[in-house]
Amino acid sequence: MKGLFITIEGGDGSGKTTQIELLMNYLNLQGYKVCLTREPGGTIISEKIRTIILDKTHAEMADMTEALLYAASRAQHVHEFIIPKMKEGYMVICDRFVDSSVVYQGYARGLGIENIEIINRYATLGLEPDLTVLLDIPAEEGLIRKKSQQSLDRLELQADKFHIMVSEGYRKLANRHKERILSIDANQSIDTIHKTIVKVLEAKRQLL
Amino acid sequence: MKGLFITIEGGDGSGKTTQIELLMNYLNLQGYKVCLTREPGGTIISEKIRTIILDKTHAEMADMTEALLYAASRAQHVHEFIIPKMKEGYMVICDRFVDSSVVYQGYARGLGIENIEIINRYATLGLEPDLTVLLDIPAEEGLIRKKSQQSLDRLELQADKFHIMVSEGYRKLANRHKERILSIDANQSIDTIHKTIVKVLEAKRQLL
Repeated sequence: MKGLFITIEGGDGSGKTTQIELLMNYLNLQGYKVCLTREPGGTIISEKIRTIILDKTHAEMADMTEALLYAASRAQHVHEFIIPKMKEGYMVICDRFVDSSVVYQGYARGLGIENIEIINRYATLGLEPDLTVLLDIPAEEGLIRKKSQQSLDRLELQADKFHIMVSEGYRKLANRHKERILSIDANQSIDTIHKTIVKVLEAKRQLL
Repeated sequence: MKGLFITIEGGDGSGKTTQIELLMNYLNLQGYKVCLTREPGGTIISEKIRTIILDKTHAEMADMTEALLYAASRAQHVHEFIIPKMKEGYMVICDRFVDSSVVYQGYARGLGIENIEIINRYATLGLEPDLTVLLDIPAEEGLIRKKSQQSLDRLELQADKFHIMVSEGYRKLANRHKERILSIDANQSIDTIHKTIVKVLEAKRQLL
């Protein structure tokens, strides 16, 4: 069985964690070798970079610094983890990937979608996901869902306006990459969303 | 008096530290506001990134990760330190800048001179030094000079061949940017080198 590279995207509170768990269970039951990783992270070096990005005391961090740190973390992640795992036949599920950088830094922070795409083409050496699941939820609802959770990190402390830009950015991206991005209304039931993901994933798998 | 942005480049053991000290003293005596900084570094965030780059335990670091970390560190350095200091009228002396990345990552490690230039154009927002002093020394001699010094970091543990590539890369770069890069034979006496730097710097200053 051939490995696939699947990424999950969506604003904070869109239900990514729940859907990832359900998808992992499903794939495990099907007999696949599955591994989960996240962006930024997945390797010791990437996790150290993540610590710098999310440190609340780094209020003076320039937007371009942040974008380049995400790219650096991703370069290591792709090199040391994602590509080797795929070569071993794993289904690699990644919580956030290039699309997050394009939406957050390129669109919401205004660094430019194309600029972030260029930087990340270097970082990924051109690797693209076989399937990207976008859990689409209006920004306001995402915030409400998240508020019950524990301490918020630096990114999560951003203003509401930023979250609305993120929702918009994801929708623009989904329109541009219809063949790769599966956009799902995250207001549907957990089970409905899960079944949609499985259906599209199985269709993709048949094609490969 | 208008501030200038001066960078110092050269392989390990080329005598950068000595010449930087002499230049700082000279500029201070002339009544300039002078500040020294280094690449990577110069800000809290940049120094944290530097720690990740130079950590000897990070043997698995991909070349592209390293290149993007240098760029991230530089983006913060330019944003938070170099540009503000120049606006305050300082002469900013920087120990290594973009040229180091182009030579080390782009040429010696083979990531491509142009690729590293593109990534760094994002990092610096297009800022270029008014003058770059290159202390040119054959690679073998640099290594001998350095060996008497304390513990070597990860980069310094690279093979001799790499150091020879660095020397070659610097010479190529000096030929490409004759108007900006002052290449000096580092085998000359300390005083001769210092006087050459001062002469060229004063000429540059007259032009601005």
